[in-house]
Amino acid sequence: MQDFNDNPHKRYNILTGEWVLVSPHRTKRPWQGKNEEPAKFSQESYDSECYLCPTNTRANGEVNPDYKKPYSFTNDFAALLKEVPEVDFTDGLLKAKSESGICKVICFSPNHALTLPVMKVEEITDVVQLWQKEFLLLGELEGINYVQIFENKGAVMGCSNPHPHGQIWAQRSIPGEISKKTERQKEFWQTHKKSLLGAYLDQELALKERILIENDDFVALVPYWAVWPYETMIIPRRKVKDISELTTTEAYNFAEIIKKLTTKYDNVFKTSFPYSAGIHQAPTDGGSYEEWHMHMSFYPPLLRSSTVKKFMVGYEMFADPQRDITAEQAAQKIRSQSDEHYTTVL
Amino acid sequence: MQDFNDNPHKRYNILTGEWVLVSPHRTKRPWQGKNEEPAKFSQESYDSECYLCPTNTRANGEVNPDYKKPYSFTNDFAALLKEVPEVDFTDGLLKAKSESGICKVICFSPNHALTLPVMKVEEITDVVQLWQKEFLLLGELEGINYVQIFENKGAVMGCSNPHPHGQIWAQRSIPGEISKKTERQKEFWQTHKKSLLGAYLDQELALKERILIENDDFVALVPYWAVWPYETMIIPRRKVKDISELTTTEAYNFAEIIKKLTTKYDNVFKTSFPYSAGIHQAPTDGGSYEEWHMHMSFYPPLLRSSTVKKFMVGYEMFADPQRDITAEQAAQKIRSQSDEHYTTVL
Ligand SMILES: O=P(O)(O)O[C@H]1O[C@H](CO)[C@@H](O)[C@H](O)[C@H]1O
Ligand SMILES: O=P(O)(O)O[C@H]1O[C@H](CO)[C@@H](O)[C@H](O)[C@H]1O
Repeated sequence: MQDFNDNPHKRYNILTGEWVLVSPHRTKRPWQGKNEEPAKFSQESYDSECYLCPTNTRANGEVNPDYKKPYSFTNDFAALLKEVPEVDFTDGLLKAKSESGICKVICFSPNHALTLPVMKVEEITDVVQLWQKEFLLLGELEGINYVQIFENKGAVMGCSNPHPHGQIWAQRSIPGEISKKTERQKEFWQTHKKSLLGAYLDQELALKERILIENDDFVALVPYWAVWPYETMIIPRRKVKDISELTTTEAYNFAEIIKKLTTKYDNVFKTSFPYSAGIHQAPTDGGSYEEWHMHMSFYPPLLRSSTVKKFMVGYEMFADPQRDITAEQAAQKIRSQSDEHYTTVL
Repeated sequence: MQDFNDNPHKRYNILTGEWVLVSPHRTKRPWQGKNEEPAKFSQESYDSECYLCPTNTRANGEVNPDYKKPYSFTNDFAALLKEVPEVDFTDGLLKAKSESGICKVICFSPNHALTLPVMKVEEITDVVQLWQKEFLLLGELEGINYVQIFENKGAVMGCSNPHPHGQIWAQRSIPGEISKKTERQKEFWQTHKKSLLGAYLDQELALKERILIENDDFVALVPYWAVWPYETMIIPRRKVKDISELTTTEAYNFAEIIKKLTTKYDNVFKTSFPYSAGIHQAPTDGGSYEEWHMHMSFYPPLLRSSTVKKFMVGYEMFADPQRDITAEQAAQKIRSQSDEHYTTVL
């Protein structure tokens, strides 16, 4: 496979059926383009202007409780609404249908200055348990057939508030990304009577090249088909179809590996590493989905430094996603980072 | 369809088979997030530091000729290379294959300070004719089966040099976006014996709601399934499968509608409007592709002003693309702009 380290090639994503163009030689390109503002840690544990801090009043007049643990509420400016007249519309080549759902905000901590990597494992475990609770609550509602848990971290990822928080968008229809992943996992399940992601994990554990972190219940790795420069995935060793199936120990170990992975991320460019992270899991429409193997993915945009990101533009929008470093180079770089957060070492 | 103007819904893209979530009520959301640097026009027609200006030396030591018309050369830091050992690799669940191709840079004008909207129609016609020439040259090469013509405009779209230019990436494999569009167009062609995009254009011309600009040979519109806030499409009235089939008059009218559309774009927020634009057309692998109806799409990121863009992050990456204004609102806003560029009026 020597050839692939230096030469342009495409890699196949076994979960979506899509390809990514890898151009390892391209890192030599000088960068004269846009420089981002490097992300900094907030210094204040409370910000009176922040609409997510405890006891503050939000834009719509509601007052946050003096919460001590992770806290969730319905998004004041939700992209999805619960009550929507049901319409299925076709007129010639125009096709649309109504969509309903619920958008929630999940504050990870009352402390404005924290982020996942600098929170305690116990505190992150509380977040994982709130995700579990929300998943169960939302998933059981009539008309909620999929629950998307995610976090946009950093201004460069469209996050408008540094207070540590994520979101949940739960909706009637099954999103496109989920349909693709259901299809591929089902195909494999029916042929091999085992989990696609489980089989992939076994292969990666044998090869070791792209493995980043392991604990008793989870493995973090750079997927072979990674698109974003430092894209990673956290996979539970046991095939659980959604987050609600995690035991208390597994919830703790999930929190532990999230802390380790995000710490390594921050250490890569000595910055609060921006990303979008999301949990992909089985729909909640009542189907059995025994093929589904839940996982969490991180899509971070930084490429060369805390100020130079990868742009998914032109070619990437019109043809195929493209990356400049190989998954193996990225894995090597992330893996070699300390488990100690750079700010505590400084 | 009144319901759809105020309520969340999904719309179907007839060319890719994908859905976009539309949340029209969401524009009321206050924005406390990232503000971009507004794009400015360069003031100098020649910049001695620019590697695209005539007579300047590029990073690799090559010297640009004193070109007077649009000028193309092979990208010095190409993501695709011509000579790549052919490898088809499968190992368990890892799957990769080599990719070869050619990347070119197309300077639109020797004048560093220009952009498409402020160039003369005749000058843009020269660009269209260079695209045609390159398409024919590259497409005829052994091992080049698809030719992607595109432009990244503006720093916010990853463009690293304000000199007016676009790119061409031509390659062996058929990109994912093209496969999807081939599939849908073929399906329609086989059932209805006519062009999918032609039929769609007829419907839009009858409805008029999303039409922006018309001339004898082309129509510019906001597609019903637009993802980016001000996404648009230029469609030739005649079904041509690729750019080489355009007559001299059509090339001129293509240039004319590009000028008008990009002028309106600049006028929307009184800024040099950033976007990625690309031409989708039939592969060059020797197939007949009679179903293919070439078109040019513009994906601009600005949402609310010259400094606030739409972020395609979290939900959009993990679930489905999402937009805050309807295609009809966007069409109304673009259409109502003057055909006179704001800088000439100021
Ligand atoms: O080739 P350029 O202009 O240096 O780079 C730009 O366009 C390329 C093609 O869309 C992208 O891969 C890069 O991320 C972007 O910065
Ligand atoms: O909901 P927020 O944090 O205001 O907004 C952010 O996340 C959303 C969900 O990914 C995106 O649609 C927005 O573009 C982004 O700015």
